[in-house]
Amino acid sequence: MTQIVQCVPNFSEGRDQTKIEAIVKPLKNKQGFKLVSYEPDADYNRTVVTLIGDPQAISDALIPFVKEALKQIDMNHQSGEHPRMGAVDVIPFIPIQDIKMEDCVAYANKTAKAINDHFDIPIYMYAKAANEKKRINLPTIRKGEFEGLKEKIKDPKWMPDYGEANIHPTFGAIGVGARIPLIAYNIDIDTKELTPAKKMSRAIRHSSGGFRFIQAGPVYLESREHTQVTMNILNYKKNPIYRILETIKMEAKRFHVRVPSCELVGLIPKDALLRSVRYYLEAENKVYDKMMPLDKLVELTKTYMNFRDFDKTKIIEYYI
Amino acid sequence: MTQIVQCVPNFSEGRDQTKIEAIVKPLKNKQGFKLVSYEPDADYNRTVVTLIGDPQAISDALIPFVKEALKQIDMNHQSGEHPRMGAVDVIPFIPIQDIKMEDCVAYANKTAKAINDHFDIPIYMYAKAANEKKRINLPTIRKGEFEGLKEKIKDPKWMPDYGEANIHPTFGAIGVGARIPLIAYNIDIDTKELTPAKKMSRAIRHSSGGFRFIQAGPVYLESREHTQVTMNILNYKKNPIYRILETIKMEAKRFHVRVPSCELVGLIPKDALLRSVRYYLEAENKVYDKMMPLDKLVELTKTYMNFRDFDKTKIIEYYI
Repeated sequence: MTQIVQCVPNFSEGRDQTKIEAIVKPLKNKQGFKLVSYEPDADYNRTVVTLIGDPQAISDALIPFVKEALKQIDMNHQSGEHPRMGAVDVIPFIPIQDIKMEDCVAYANKTAKAINDHFDIPIYMYAKAANEKKRINLPTIRKGEFEGLKEKIKDPKWMPDYGEANIHPTFGAIGVGARIPLIAYNIDIDTKELTPAKKMSRAIRHSSGGFRFIQAGPVYLESREHTQVTMNILNYKKNPIYRILETIKMEAKRFHVRVPSCELVGLIPKDALLRSVRYYLEAENKVYDKMMPLDKLVELTKTYMNFRDFDKTKIIEYYI
Repeated sequence: MTQIVQCVPNFSEGRDQTKIEAIVKPLKNKQGFKLVSYEPDADYNRTVVTLIGDPQAISDALIPFVKEALKQIDMNHQSGEHPRMGAVDVIPFIPIQDIKMEDCVAYANKTAKAINDHFDIPIYMYAKAANEKKRINLPTIRKGEFEGLKEKIKDPKWMPDYGEANIHPTFGAIGVGARIPLIAYNIDIDTKELTPAKKMSRAIRHSSGGFRFIQAGPVYLESREHTQVTMNILNYKKNPIYRILETIKMEAKRFHVRVPSCELVGLIPKDALLRSVRYYLEAENKVYDKMMPLDKLVELTKTYMNFRDFDKTKIIEYYI
């Protein structure tokens, strides 16, 4: 079978549509992989690109992509709400099908070396591709951001994994990594009051004593006029969606608020949905079939977990 | 108001009733504190003693207690299922009323110094009383146990906090510490099959990705003919009982097993029960009164959480 990865480069332009189009152009209509989406965020001044397909084809296409970002973005004149250290800020490789994490680490290194060879941009390897324990966590590497990294990179402890101890004067530096799929998952809370979402976030997130692979916080959605518990699930196998959702529903009881729906940001591996749908089917003594078609999986996901704005184009395997 | 601590010395004899009685005798009928219980376990070959009262009075009484354990126990001929490094294995001080953790750390050190001065027994300070990060976790100190510590103690990294780099030839060494109250809590699962308890333990415990302050495992109770999820709650403020119990009930649904009751081993602070009873009262829109008498608290605990073999003598504040 064919090796398939997901690759999610983030670049530091989320406002100028002309620049954004120019930067993603080298990723469009390529052999071997699909450009699934690119989602600019004006507040963040950042665009998240999702690619799915052959890791070598993706790695090759990232060279002209970085070249265009280098041409379009000068980090000395870039600002936004999202922390960043480079014009292309991060490039994570994520194993999806018939590929091991160690192979993704190898592709991450190959890509990092090629980028550095071509453009003299320093690279830090992170997550599963990290060469040191303190470089596993991307925010630790990125601390100080583009501006602070000018000095930080000269510290022998922060020597980049590829390149010299100088940032690129206009581009900065890139974090290249390998990791398991991360799920950006939000649970709607049917109140404008932020307190319930705040207390529920505390109940589930690791930093306050909750589940080990959950990062969560409360947020008020101006446009929808209700709050959310917004989260990253860093390991959906150990912290499955249903367990988080049911814990939130349990906590909601004391606040007398409803939990009407939930949503995904970006894509989700089929396996993550299967694991949660299975819980509800088993609880109802119904047959679980892991080979069910995507349409059926979408239907069950909506039935049991009330996902909104959800269809099969949110599932990674749809693109394979 | 009066300073009150709980102190829970564990000693390495759980079989010979004559020896056990001799060792606890110096703790009986003393001024300033109560000997609440001593619970020998034959399989573990270990007895857990619970003292509540004035920290200085307890500290003083521990000297003749250690003296008697030294007389009665030769660790060269002791074996049991519980890991141990000394005839008296651990002495933790736990703040209960009008005393700060730092005061408990001071009493722990005072006690450790006195024991070492009297009997030349080496002492490791652990938990909040640890002097180094790697000594916070007692199992890390105790690794190798009595037998292995003979060599380990000579390693400069494992120099004891009080005493020389030699274990006492028959007594071994003691861990003396200070910590918040730990709750030993077991949830009954109405099946003989171990698999549900095993999978539910994995869902809640930190080491498998669950709640940060939960250590848990599955166990089959021969005498009661059902299984349990047995656990330590290391921080009941961040991982309240109700949340763990409700998560277990949620997980139980997929296994079609009942969760009929639960139990405590040892004592529990009133505050831990109040926090959980409050959840259920709030969920039912009922009035919560944190000044409720112990009898009322016991009644609500049984109503909402089905505690069995439970009465107010299990609540630390009953002894104050």
